[in-house]
Amino acid sequence: MLMAPLMAGLTGSVLASAVRFERGGGAFAIATSQSTTPVWVDPSDHKGVARVAHDFAADVARVTGAAPPTVSTRGTGVRRAIIVGSLDRSPLVQDLVRRGKLDVSGVAGQWEACVVQTVAQPFPGVDEALVIAGADKRGTIYGVYDLSRSIGVSPWYWWADVPVRRRAGIWLDAGRRVQRSPAVKYRGIFLNNEAPCLSGWTAEKFGGMNSAFYAKVFELLLRLKANYLWPAMWNNAFADDDPRNAELADEYGIVMGTSHHEPMNRAHKEFTSRREHIGNGEWNYVSNGDAVREFFREGAARSKQHELLVTLGMRGDGDVALEGTGGLQSDIRLLEQVIADQRQLLVEQTGKRIKDIPQVWVLFTEVQKYYDAGLKLPADVTLMFSDDNVGYLRRLPTAAERTSRTGGFGIYHHMDMNGGPFSYKWTNTNPLPKLWEQLNQALHHGADRIWISNVGDLKPLELPIEFFLAMAWDPAAMGRDKLQAWTEAWAARDFGAEHARDIARLASRYAKANAWRKPEVLKPDTYSLEHHDEALRLSRFWGELRRDAEGVNTRLQPDQRAAYYQFVLHPVRACANLNELLLAAARNQRFSRQARASANDEAALVRRLFAESRRIRDTYNLELVGGKWNHLMDQTYLGYFDWYQPTADIPPAVTELDLPDDARFGVAVDGSVQGWPGYYLPPTLPTFDGLLRNTSWLEVFPRGKRPAPVQVTAEQSWIRLRAVPAFSAGKDDVRHEVSIDWANVPEGNASGSIVVTDGRERVTVGVRVAGATVSQRDAARGAWGSLGAPFSIPADGFTRNVEARGVRWLPLPDYGRVEVAMTPEPVTAASFADPRQAPRLHYPLFVGGAGEFNVDVITAPTLRIDPAHELSLALWVDDGAPIVRSVFNPQERESQEFLGRQHDLNARADMRVMRFKLRIDTPGRHVLTVAMVDPGLVLQQLIVYRDRLPASYFGPLPQRLEA
Amino acid sequence: MLMAPLMAGLTGSVLASAVRFERGGGAFAIATSQSTTPVWVDPSDHKGVARVAHDFAADVARVTGAAPPTVSTRGTGVRRAIIVGSLDRSPLVQDLVRRGKLDVSGVAGQWEACVVQTVAQPFPGVDEALVIAGADKRGTIYGVYDLSRSIGVSPWYWWADVPVRRRAGIWLDAGRRVQRSPAVKYRGIFLNNEAPCLSGWTAEKFGGMNSAFYAKVFELLLRLKANYLWPAMWNNAFADDDPRNAELADEYGIVMGTSHHEPMNRAHKEFTSRREHIGNGEWNYVSNGDAVREFFREGAARSKQHELLVTLGMRGDGDVALEGTGGLQSDIRLLEQVIADQRQLLVEQTGKRIKDIPQVWVLFTEVQKYYDAGLKLPADVTLMFSDDNVGYLRRLPTAAERTSRTGGFGIYHHMDMNGGPFSYKWTNTNPLPKLWEQLNQALHHGADRIWISNVGDLKPLELPIEFFLAMAWDPAAMGRDKLQAWTEAWAARDFGAEHARDIARLASRYAKANAWRKPEVLKPDTYSLEHHDEALRLSRFWGELRRDAEGVNTRLQPDQRAAYYQFVLHPVRACANLNELLLAAARNQRFSRQARASANDEAALVRRLFAESRRIRDTYNLELVGGKWNHLMDQTYLGYFDWYQPTADIPPAVTELDLPDDARFGVAVDGSVQGWPGYYLPPTLPTFDGLLRNTSWLEVFPRGKRPAPVQVTAEQSWIRLRAVPAFSAGKDDVRHEVSIDWANVPEGNASGSIVVTDGRERVTVGVRVAGATVSQRDAARGAWGSLGAPFSIPADGFTRNVEARGVRWLPLPDYGRVEVAMTPEPVTAASFADPRQAPRLHYPLFVGGAGEFNVDVITAPTLRIDPAHELSLALWVDDGAPIVRSVFNPQERESQEFLGRQHDLNARADMRVMRFKLRIDTPGRHVLTVAMVDPGLVLQQLIVYRDRLPASYFGPLPQRLEA
Repeated sequence: MLMAPLMAGLTGSVLASAVRFERGGGAFAIATSQSTTPVWVDPSDHKGVARVAHDFAADVARVTGAAPPTVSTRGTGVRRAIIVGSLDRSPLVQDLVRRGKLDVSGVAGQWEACVVQTVAQPFPGVDEALVIAGADKRGTIYGVYDLSRSIGVSPWYWWADVPVRRRAGIWLDAGRRVQRSPAVKYRGIFLNNEAPCLSGWTAEKFGGMNSAFYAKVFELLLRLKANYLWPAMWNNAFADDDPRNAELADEYGIVMGTSHHEPMNRAHKEFTSRREHIGNGEWNYVSNGDAVREFFREGAARSKQHELLVTLGMRGDGDVALEGTGGLQSDIRLLEQVIADQRQLLVEQTGKRIKDIPQVWVLFTEVQKYYDAGLKLPADVTLMFSDDNVGYLRRLPTAAERTSRTGGFGIYHHMDMNGGPFSYKWTNTNPLPKLWEQLNQALHHGADRIWISNVGDLKPLELPIEFFLAMAWDPAAMGRDKLQAWTEAWAARDFGAEHARDIARLASRYAKANAWRKPEVLKPDTYSLEHHDEALRLSRFWGELRRDAEGVNTRLQPDQRAAYYQFVLHPVRACANLNELLLAAARNQRFSRQARASANDEAALVRRLFAESRRIRDTYNLELVGGKWNHLMDQTYLGYFDWYQPTADIPPAVTELDLPDDARFGVAVDGSVQGWPGYYLPPTLPTFDGLLRNTSWLEVFPRGKRPAPVQVTAEQSWIRLRAVPAFSAGKDDVRHEVSIDWANVPEGNASGSIVVTDGRERVTVGVRVAGATVSQRDAARGAWGSLGAPFSIPADGFTRNVEARGVRWLPLPDYGRVEVAMTPEPVTAASFADPRQAPRLHYPLFVGGAGEFNVDVITAPTLRIDPAHELSLALWVDDGAPIVRSVFNPQERESQEFLGRQHDLNARADMRVMRFKLRIDTPGRHVLTVAMVDPGLVLQQLIVYRDRLPASYFGPLPQRLEA
Repeated sequence: MLMAPLMAGLTGSVLASAVRFERGGGAFAIATSQSTTPVWVDPSDHKGVARVAHDFAADVARVTGAAPPTVSTRGTGVRRAIIVGSLDRSPLVQDLVRRGKLDVSGVAGQWEACVVQTVAQPFPGVDEALVIAGADKRGTIYGVYDLSRSIGVSPWYWWADVPVRRRAGIWLDAGRRVQRSPAVKYRGIFLNNEAPCLSGWTAEKFGGMNSAFYAKVFELLLRLKANYLWPAMWNNAFADDDPRNAELADEYGIVMGTSHHEPMNRAHKEFTSRREHIGNGEWNYVSNGDAVREFFREGAARSKQHELLVTLGMRGDGDVALEGTGGLQSDIRLLEQVIADQRQLLVEQTGKRIKDIPQVWVLFTEVQKYYDAGLKLPADVTLMFSDDNVGYLRRLPTAAERTSRTGGFGIYHHMDMNGGPFSYKWTNTNPLPKLWEQLNQALHHGADRIWISNVGDLKPLELPIEFFLAMAWDPAAMGRDKLQAWTEAWAARDFGAEHARDIARLASRYAKANAWRKPEVLKPDTYSLEHHDEALRLSRFWGELRRDAEGVNTRLQPDQRAAYYQFVLHPVRACANLNELLLAAARNQRFSRQARASANDEAALVRRLFAESRRIRDTYNLELVGGKWNHLMDQTYLGYFDWYQPTADIPPAVTELDLPDDARFGVAVDGSVQGWPGYYLPPTLPTFDGLLRNTSWLEVFPRGKRPAPVQVTAEQSWIRLRAVPAFSAGKDDVRHEVSIDWANVPEGNASGSIVVTDGRERVTVGVRVAGATVSQRDAARGAWGSLGAPFSIPADGFTRNVEARGVRWLPLPDYGRVEVAMTPEPVTAASFADPRQAPRLHYPLFVGGAGEFNVDVITAPTLRIDPAHELSLALWVDDGAPIVRSVFNPQERESQEFLGRQHDLNARADMRVMRFKLRIDTPGRHVLTVAMVDPGLVLQQLIVYRDRLPASYFGPLPQRLEA
């Protein structure tokens, strides 16, 4: 048996490397330039198997131009056939097994498993067959779609216009290949928050969320090896909207569910649209119990006809908190009664044993408190934990829970949100390393029965959706250090190997940057204009990303560009434009304050970039594939005041100055919001640090309508100046980069100045230098530190990584705010009581002075998935006593509270700060140790400073002292 | 002896009613159409007396067109003379006294007193004389200027271009009139924060702050009966800038001082410009004591030559806190040493006794803490308390202090500020009732030795400056209830009686409104757009004020308009425009959020109003009197980020929406920031209260480029709608006022709705009515209250005012946020231990329901002038237990702290909230009692509400329930 090659899931599992597009080596001919091989399906097989056989024929036609015939039985008069059938239903396949032609060991009886095998003389008169035999309906279907992917039909061929490469013929190497059962039993998505985009698009293209639309969704899900769906429900009822919907899902092989707050197989809209006929019309189990139970009863009956996964429980009227009874314990008793009644109705209406009906209870938002407070849930119900709505799981099963719950555990995850802590609906903000880290936690903690992710309008979340489902199927294929390779394989599949690296990089980077702060909560003042050149760095980042993305676009074939626009170019263009727009608005406000004439140029730039944002959107909606995706970019994203979406995009407000008709000048400096002449304190640059050897800048600009020629002169020979373009839309603004000629600066602390003058006015900018001695420089070499300035240490900047009891800090590349984060593995490791004996990282440190230091440890805002853990971390210097800080101990709880103000802030910044205060008694070189106490922390960066840290989003950039 | 008539101070003290412009009744002819009466001054009199005689001659010429000769001795050959002389120096006058011709009883030896008397046959050959004889130099000068004012020469004739009415002749009724000594010995102003206005203007008009400029200042001060000046010192040194300055001040009769932080008669700039020659250059008594003492010594010598009031003590280098020694007690010892040394230097350099040299020590900002902590100040030094920089005195002398300090007490007051808690430099924000209340406190607490007020650039603070100085002279003339009359007398003097009432009203109202929140801290969101129609009310207020001011302007004579522009029209135009500008910016932001097309009209309006603000400024600077006042309106006021002024005015940022090219509509409603369709909760109007019978509104507007015709229909017949213009710059926006047909609404609580539809979209606005029963209406009649809505009680809305121990709440008209405030008098009353026996106000109250109520008592943010008082107030309902709340008790101190965050907020809003929580056990009518505990509180308003008060600046308007 051939093993699944790395990344195979993307391109067709075990089949990928066996497909050939040239004849040879005894390979099985699926299609040649002369002929096609017919596809046989037994008429008594599942309908969905026959359907997928037709899809496969169409896929072959997509590749070769000619569709093979599909025959609803064993055909005759051919020497070669493709036989598709399920082991549980296909006599055709069962016959092959019986006759020893097909080896189904390791497949038969295995949930959704499949064997793909070439068989010589399968039947009399037939020379050879390619048999695709699933253990069950979906196993067979997945096997067929695996082959489709392997021959070059992307799961996104329709949903994102990924072109299919034409081939003269298709062959498959002879052999037997097995696709085993998936890691996660039910894998699906939730179409949610579906207005204005998905609603508008389906209304225009399908006339609503009907079976024509859902057929497209089901096909996509199956091609992605998903099996589970929560349908759209904002203003939709799956069963009501089109009577064919439910039937079709079952036929395709999709297990339908209802969302976390819609119990008993019924959409909430089914209730609201019939409310007047349901008792007193209240969605309330106390006041309207009989009528609500009747409503449940009708839902229960659906589990008899179709393969459904029943949501149990009850929340309030329309995805709001339960209308309680007034007390927590009485609410719990009420919910227990609701669930007991629901289960009884299921048995009564289906005639099945309750354990044969898959059921789930979802701990969304406030519902978790009932469970925490002791609600008793029958053991056969799957308990589904939720994330915090931004992708961090709130809870995972404990060892004790795992042993007792036969129904197992699931997770309800978000890639899109309309609600708290804030909404994000516009674009893809889900970097794969972040998904991987949390999904990996889920797997290792045993939450593997159901995975569902809220994916908004489905588009433009193609990449994270595929990743989520691929990981649910075969997590072994995508380790912490294989994510970039996976992304490249994805890009290679859909765009060809020659563009794979570039496209993978672009797709990863825009999503990573979007997660630094999601577009909806990005504001003009998010990034600092005055510290660390942060805003300029962001502007360059997006500028380069956009340039690269446009470059790839020109190199692609014309038929690839629609898919590329959807996957890469739209989000890169749109997000780069958004970032530039906000930065221009920020400069407009800052420059206004400095009485800088170019404030008006920034206002004009804001208007231009806003108009550009309309063009970028319209290209998606109106131009792409002749308007195929119209309305799917209707989402507003500029001007969120709260969690609900703005009715229209609101460009940032801008100020226009009334400029004097003269040539006066102004000066702004690194580290300050002020302008001179004007501000009462003199301008001074941030101290030049003899170890960091930082540069700095001042900007000179007109304040009137006319250019303002000035002389900029350093008063000391060791101050170097270099004129470069200012970070400004004003053509007459000039930046003067300031650096120090370290070879010639006086020893110790020095000061100097730079004079800016137009002959009348004069601004003197102070320069302060903290010089390092030779011995300081020697001692600091290779360490992280400074003489006095704040500095930053990246998580992977350690010199020793000490394992303990088989637990170790491991790198997580391309994560969060840094290149490489560190997190302890295994993720289920026990806590360490003594940090000195725990897995730890040693960082070399150099400080110019002794005293008290703040260390801000930047981690991901992961939550306490195991209630026994407090997410503690220890930190110390040299042989000092470890300082232990906890995120979730009772004292810290208030400041780091979940779903409170601190969680809101953490979620928006996608990080958490753990602040340590350290004493370092001697200047010079030291070792800073970070030790695990609890698992589950993702360490990104340490920021070290005295007193106050200048306000910025990312803090100082890490800079290793010159080695 | 004739008594000074009411308001006489303004127009010439006791002389005002004796001046005639027609011959008759034996009146003394100062000038006739045929002749002038010469002015005699003895050559040995004070130079300043001779100088003022020449001024008087010029004033007569201003009135009649012909200047009388001034004769530096007793003239000859005339039958009538005006004799001007001081009792201490003029042999001419002394001779009249000796010969019994002039009665100087009650004048001789009295500081700055004066007699003006007609004398028959004063000398042989002279038929009659008018003698103006002061007890001293300034007494004489004030007497002369009194006469000048009385004949129609305003103190502001030059400084504000007040025209002098031409008369054919001037006569004075025969008789003897006495001007007594002033209430406050030293009365003056501080020219401060003088850039960019005063600096720019003096540079252009005088070539700097030289003697030509100061001569104008001295003359003005003397005409206003001031005698004391702290000169400009930002970038100026009075003595250095022009060697004539000091000499001239002494000659005019102005007592020069130096500001609170400039000791020993020397400007701080005298130090900074010589720093390198003064020891080690540090302004530090520890590190550079000898050199600083030498610097002081040179200043001490100036007290020998000139009449100076010496500032003692020391702060840091340039109006910053003292560079301390590291401990409070050692700082105190250091300051005591500084003062002792300074006094020794004064004695040594002048040869005078220390008690003959007037000295002052100013408790500015941090300096007060040294005094509070026990610094020993010699008893003959005047102790000057400061305000909080916004006009509220921090401290006044206690009874114990008053008995022991022979040097007495003074106050340092601000009408202009550059610094904390915030800056206000642009326009006049000093309503007279607020000045009166605090100055009255100062007088009654014995702070009457020195009054000085920081008046910024002097202009445009003409009115409060004159009021401050007039009150310092004769506070009896300006009681709490005479302020409007005083203002009308001021307007009548400078513009004539026919305009007096209008102009006085305009001048009072704009200043009052500017004090609600000073322009520099007014922001677009200051006033609520959604509650109580507050922003609309403000817009109407300023619109009417501006219309009235423009109306008066057209009715004035052309030669009166320059003065009127300076006193009234500029501030009204400029402040009305500013308020409209900010409200347009507020609407722009609000409308953007509602996707309202007229957001763009508001953006255009902001641009128009900003351009208009430039024109209003330029009229002052460039057009008025041919540019005479250029630069005096250079002050920036838009875009303060902090206390320091913006370099250029920064108009508020505005948003421009990208409008769809269609005719869709939107709806906004009273009480909400949202727009519909869009927001997820349905729109509902504030509850209509059956007692308040409030109205409400909704606004309908286009969201696209085209008008959006809609039907607005009430679904119930008892809902009345009336279309009026929206509060919007959008011509297609419509407001629908909603009221209730109370005769036809169902009993009790009712609900209904209003439907807005264009035939496609439909918005349903909820209407909720709380109906009052007949008995509720009967019980509520004449009370303050509601069925449930928040309501407000004005301070003078009581039905009983109970006096206790001679103490009583008295009305203070036109004060703060209300028409009439109430404050206990006498201001020096002792506290009351039992509120039930204290002076108290009973308010009739009606509440629709029982339970807990919040009562926000709105007072002025007065401070604890007597450290023994906590500013406590008591409040209770019916016969309940009094609840006592204190502003300054130790527990409350933190929230109401002085010069901390709460003080900042209070100072910006010019009010303080004292929050009481009350239980009212039965619905219906009650009596709410407010009782004094401590004196010093100025009660403005009570706001009563359940739960949460909708956010607004003023709260609900008071509305007495229908009588």
